[in-house]
Amino acid sequence: MHNPHAGQSPVTVIGLGLMGQALAGTFLGNGHPTTVWNRSAEKADELVARGATLAASVRDAVEASPLVIVCVSDYAAAHGLLAPLGDALAGRVLVNLTSGTSEQARESAEWAAGEGVTYLDGAIMAIPPVIGTADAFLLYSGPQDAYDAHEPTLKALGAGTTYLGADHGLASLYDVALLGIMWGTLNSFLHGAALVGTAKVDATVFAPFANRWIEAVTGFVSAYAGQIDEGAYPALDATIDTHVATMDHLIHESESGGVNTELPRLVKALADRAVAEGRGGDGYAAMIEQFRRPSA
Amino acid sequence: MHNPHAGQSPVTVIGLGLMGQALAGTFLGNGHPTTVWNRSAEKADELVARGATLAASVRDAVEASPLVIVCVSDYAAAHGLLAPLGDALAGRVLVNLTSGTSEQARESAEWAAGEGVTYLDGAIMAIPPVIGTADAFLLYSGPQDAYDAHEPTLKALGAGTTYLGADHGLASLYDVALLGIMWGTLNSFLHGAALVGTAKVDATVFAPFANRWIEAVTGFVSAYAGQIDEGAYPALDATIDTHVATMDHLIHESESGGVNTELPRLVKALADRAVAEGRGGDGYAAMIEQFRRPSA
Repeated sequence: MHNPHAGQSPVTVIGLGLMGQALAGTFLGNGHPTTVWNRSAEKADELVARGATLAASVRDAVEASPLVIVCVSDYAAAHGLLAPLGDALAGRVLVNLTSGTSEQARESAEWAAGEGVTYLDGAIMAIPPVIGTADAFLLYSGPQDAYDAHEPTLKALGAGTTYLGADHGLASLYDVALLGIMWGTLNSFLHGAALVGTAKVDATVFAPFANRWIEAVTGFVSAYAGQIDEGAYPALDATIDTHVATMDHLIHESESGGVNTELPRLVKALADRAVAEGRGGDGYAAMIEQFRRPSA
Repeated sequence: MHNPHAGQSPVTVIGLGLMGQALAGTFLGNGHPTTVWNRSAEKADELVARGATLAASVRDAVEASPLVIVCVSDYAAAHGLLAPLGDALAGRVLVNLTSGTSEQARESAEWAAGEGVTYLDGAIMAIPPVIGTADAFLLYSGPQDAYDAHEPTLKALGAGTTYLGADHGLASLYDVALLGIMWGTLNSFLHGAALVGTAKVDATVFAPFANRWIEAVTGFVSAYAGQIDEGAYPALDATIDTHVATMDHLIHESESGGVNTELPRLVKALADRAVAEGRGGDGYAAMIEQFRRPSA
């Protein structure tokens, strides 16, 4: 008989929130001997029914596998669980998928180095139901040989899994930068939905236009990225001066519709500063300079 | 001999900035007898060389075609050109593709109605080089029979051309709402590029991740639109409380990297207000309520 999963390497998942459950469930589905631990053991019930092993302690969980994945609420919680277990983790690969800042990731890496623990920091750019599908992408940073050794296992969590580099802070940095893009896009969509709502247009009617336009904006993102790296911002489409004139329309439209104006006013304030610095004739990519410096 | 363009109806284009030139050039390329006018006549040179007729006056331009398209710098400029020509425009269809607010569009419609002119207001969601391609979409509002009569001609400008409804303000309203989404997405991308730049990551390295993530965000847009119309915001992925915790990471990361914090601070201030109103356990779509009301 052929078993496609024969020889899959053991994995431990510590932390069984919705995301941890999705991670462990995906490993199980791929035939990995999977050990789990959670502060409230009942969160493991469904996974145990599917074949996971519930460890009696965090130490037992760590000692069960060469690859130990932790996904808890924050870095303080992760550190609280793992700080006493440096000896057990030494010689294994610890992967921290907990959300945090690049500073926290680099601090964890320093702690791990001091304990002889090989450490990868990661970020999950997907919601739990998407884990294990082609649409999920997870980002990793830390020592490349450790990533390479476990890449087949880690790729099971999402087809778009990518190694970013040796700097342990990279995964968290990309994570917050990408989340910022999510909030920026969602907030401006919600603002737009509120605006067209003043003319009794349903959000579900507006959304396909918004998404079609967002698709077009990804083309601008690619074009602007090249300009940013070259440090030259020729106006391929509209100049910042032209944008500013239209930003006034958005503010005016928001005011007359009784819609929040904070977002469009910040958009315009940033562009006004670029104009004041002589960037009015440049393309929108020149706005990068406004973001590269601390707020006034 | 077969002429695929035989019988194409005449079109007039008033205003030959980059966009007006792209519009007129596309009509010419589709075999429409095309009359053009611009304050500086030399902007018509290339179009005339390709077969366009340069009108000696705005009146002559208007009288040359049953469909008159105006695309100038703003509504005041459009009104300045057309206000004396109500008699010449009467019985024709005037299409205003000038950028403005829904209020300006509705005022123009009132003027047109008083003069017996059939009026469509439109918005161009594309940059000039994209006009005439499958990627361009143009939005129209006003009387549907006028749109239907000229749809074959108007669709030549972009495959995504769509009629929105009888309210003349709709095209401008969609326009500013969509531009707001563009600025929101671009600014948060630029912010993100500045952030990863603190770790020496090039914008061209970051952009594919940004665009892949933006693609995922369009899925959230579709899901949230349904919740907005239903007025119920169950947390399908993360709660607003969870978002707020991660927003702190973005602010902290921006501060420690010397990157602008105004954008993430506004993102968090809006979410904090939702939490203060008891929305912390809801999904992010509940943020619509923050945008639907005037700023504090």
